[in-house]
Amino acid sequence: MGLKEDALKLHEDNKGKLAVSSKVEVKDKNDLSLVYTPGVAEVCKVIAENPEEAYKYTFKSNTVAVFTDGSAVLGLGNIGAKASLPVMEGKSILFKQLADIDAFPICVDTQDKEELIKIARNIAPGFGGINLEDISAPKCFEIEKDLQDLGIPVMHDDQHGTAITVLAAMINAAKVVDKKMEDLKVVVNGAGAAGIATVKLLNCFNIDKKICMPVRDIIVCDSKGIIHRGREGLNDVKEQLAGMTNRNDVSGILKDALKDADVFIGLSKGNVLTAEDIKVMGKDAIILAMANPIPEIMPSEALKVAKVVGTGRSDFPNQINNSLAFPGVFRGALDARALRINDEMKIAAAKAIAGCVEPTVDNILPYTLDKNVVPAVAKEVARIAKETGACEK
Amino acid sequence: MGLKEDALKLHEDNKGKLAVSSKVEVKDKNDLSLVYTPGVAEVCKVIAENPEEAYKYTFKSNTVAVFTDGSAVLGLGNIGAKASLPVMEGKSILFKQLADIDAFPICVDTQDKEELIKIARNIAPGFGGINLEDISAPKCFEIEKDLQDLGIPVMHDDQHGTAITVLAAMINAAKVVDKKMEDLKVVVNGAGAAGIATVKLLNCFNIDKKICMPVRDIIVCDSKGIIHRGREGLNDVKEQLAGMTNRNDVSGILKDALKDADVFIGLSKGNVLTAEDIKVMGKDAIILAMANPIPEIMPSEALKVAKVVGTGRSDFPNQINNSLAFPGVFRGALDARALRINDEMKIAAAKAIAGCVEPTVDNILPYTLDKNVVPAVAKEVARIAKETGACEK
Repeated sequence: MGLKEDALKLHEDNKGKLAVSSKVEVKDKNDLSLVYTPGVAEVCKVIAENPEEAYKYTFKSNTVAVFTDGSAVLGLGNIGAKASLPVMEGKSILFKQLADIDAFPICVDTQDKEELIKIARNIAPGFGGINLEDISAPKCFEIEKDLQDLGIPVMHDDQHGTAITVLAAMINAAKVVDKKMEDLKVVVNGAGAAGIATVKLLNCFNIDKKICMPVRDIIVCDSKGIIHRGREGLNDVKEQLAGMTNRNDVSGILKDALKDADVFIGLSKGNVLTAEDIKVMGKDAIILAMANPIPEIMPSEALKVAKVVGTGRSDFPNQINNSLAFPGVFRGALDARALRINDEMKIAAAKAIAGCVEPTVDNILPYTLDKNVVPAVAKEVARIAKETGACEK
Repeated sequence: MGLKEDALKLHEDNKGKLAVSSKVEVKDKNDLSLVYTPGVAEVCKVIAENPEEAYKYTFKSNTVAVFTDGSAVLGLGNIGAKASLPVMEGKSILFKQLADIDAFPICVDTQDKEELIKIARNIAPGFGGINLEDISAPKCFEIEKDLQDLGIPVMHDDQHGTAITVLAAMINAAKVVDKKMEDLKVVVNGAGAAGIATVKLLNCFNIDKKICMPVRDIIVCDSKGIIHRGREGLNDVKEQLAGMTNRNDVSGILKDALKDADVFIGLSKGNVLTAEDIKVMGKDAIILAMANPIPEIMPSEALKVAKVVGTGRSDFPNQINNSLAFPGVFRGALDARALRINDEMKIAAAKAIAGCVEPTVDNILPYTLDKNVVPAVAKEVARIAKETGACEK
């Protein structure tokens, strides 16, 4: 059978992928009187007196809502809440298997920004964190920003999970080609949620050393070419991008941007580059072409010129997949009982992921299901959360 | 240790009671490509084309939201969403253990009626049903009523779970004292959510025979005494109650209502009756005194006069607990893929519960954890759902 048939069969046979389970067995009336009335009332009273006790006596300490409106699901676009369920169940079982987090899909039947914010706030009592998922730009930025004071970590994975994994890949790819991160000239193709978050994270790379030492220069391209300060018709987000990138204010198209670049980061659509196009890049070029399922340039083509090539796909070396990031980031945030996930924690996660392998040309990142990744990431994220005040109001 | 210490220890040791689990193991990249990208996209596409397919390919066919605003939790009152979590987790594990339903707490941080309705509607895509729980009256009535067109069964358990179980208890108690249901004169003390739902269900008892043959007479009392058509200051709900009960328009206090009554149903507060008070009742009186933890009259006192006595407590015979009803009702509704839970299904549930025991004075209802109850109830509820059009729009 093909992928489609296999996937449909697996989902039909199991009626989905996620279930709930009980951590305590109710064998008799005595058990019942403890887990339910009347005993449970005593637990409620303790939490009513001090809401923080919910972390001690309920599953809140280990739950994450996988929250979506289905407006930007995978490459499928706006397919709505119900059709997004298989992805959210999939994400939830990865949370469970990789990080032992009790994640549950909350697929929401409105796509109105203010409504989504209100609902996320209102369902928060039962959750230790919220993973925003597959919500379209630009509202994803505003929703995430608004929810930062909620008192539990809220992270839009399409932005930051991707940014963290890309940063991890860059750290190790730079090692392989023996270049310093701060010397790199980087071209990012794609100014969507993932592209913007990646640029922002690269811009504050090394923030944990209290020195802002970003990569040398970043140029961002969208479908209209290079984003620069003089370009007309930029929206707010791209205006902001123009201000923080492209230090020489270069204009032109993607191929112009690539001149002397050390790294190409593709977060857009497939088949936009040839080997000829990337010949203008600097020596030992790094290509991270993450468009799915067809990368911006196929590895066989890219390797005619570049030194290190990664994609989003599992059937080529160097898969760059945010499953390396989100389970450990939330595990660490929950373990530290962080109130938010700050940039320092994201950078710590990227470094920890990178630290899980001795990088080579064909192995810049650990295997997606490598059991060593989550503990390493969680430990660093929790440590940095405490150090940087992310656990304090 | 005492009940409080035991309950706190159990909840702390397990960090709550509920967890999620995966129904499929992700062992390698091939598994990952089926449960997550790229294979999952094929499943999403099928559902995007026909939303009904969510029942085939996702866990929607087996999920129930245990939805509360924490405004009327057990006897504790308005303790809020976070403090209600232990109850909602408890309910969810009972759903799992008794009916293999994947229930998940949705504890909502608003107590505004319109907001609650909006949130329940918006989170519905991921759920096969919604169990409204511990929401205060009168908004619980309006919320439940508004949600009946949602396309998934929505039931307020505090109303109907209780009403179903009380009806089951009455069916068997009437058998024990050899009286016909339709001849009974019933006094209900308590005009809250459970009291009102019980009266309504008794009023349409036998509806499945297409003959409305309610019990002979019902008199409802609240804290101000008997509810009758001439009483001043009745709110809408009580006005409606007055219209459907008390056929002789009797006024007075609870003790006046009890004269010649066959059944006393207590859904109010403890210690309101003595043996002396119930002496005016008819021969072989039935007392169902469900106030928790102190019944309206203690069994030892009631049995001086009455023939059959039930309470809400597990340490006396004849425990009347809605755990007998909600798991099987939702199991049946999900199995039939009912769009709503109608009165006929509730009556079918009550009869099925009653049918699980050969009733005696000390055993009018099955044991709460009896494994035979849910299959029996679910089968009847599903059958009646199909017969009465509850599966059609």
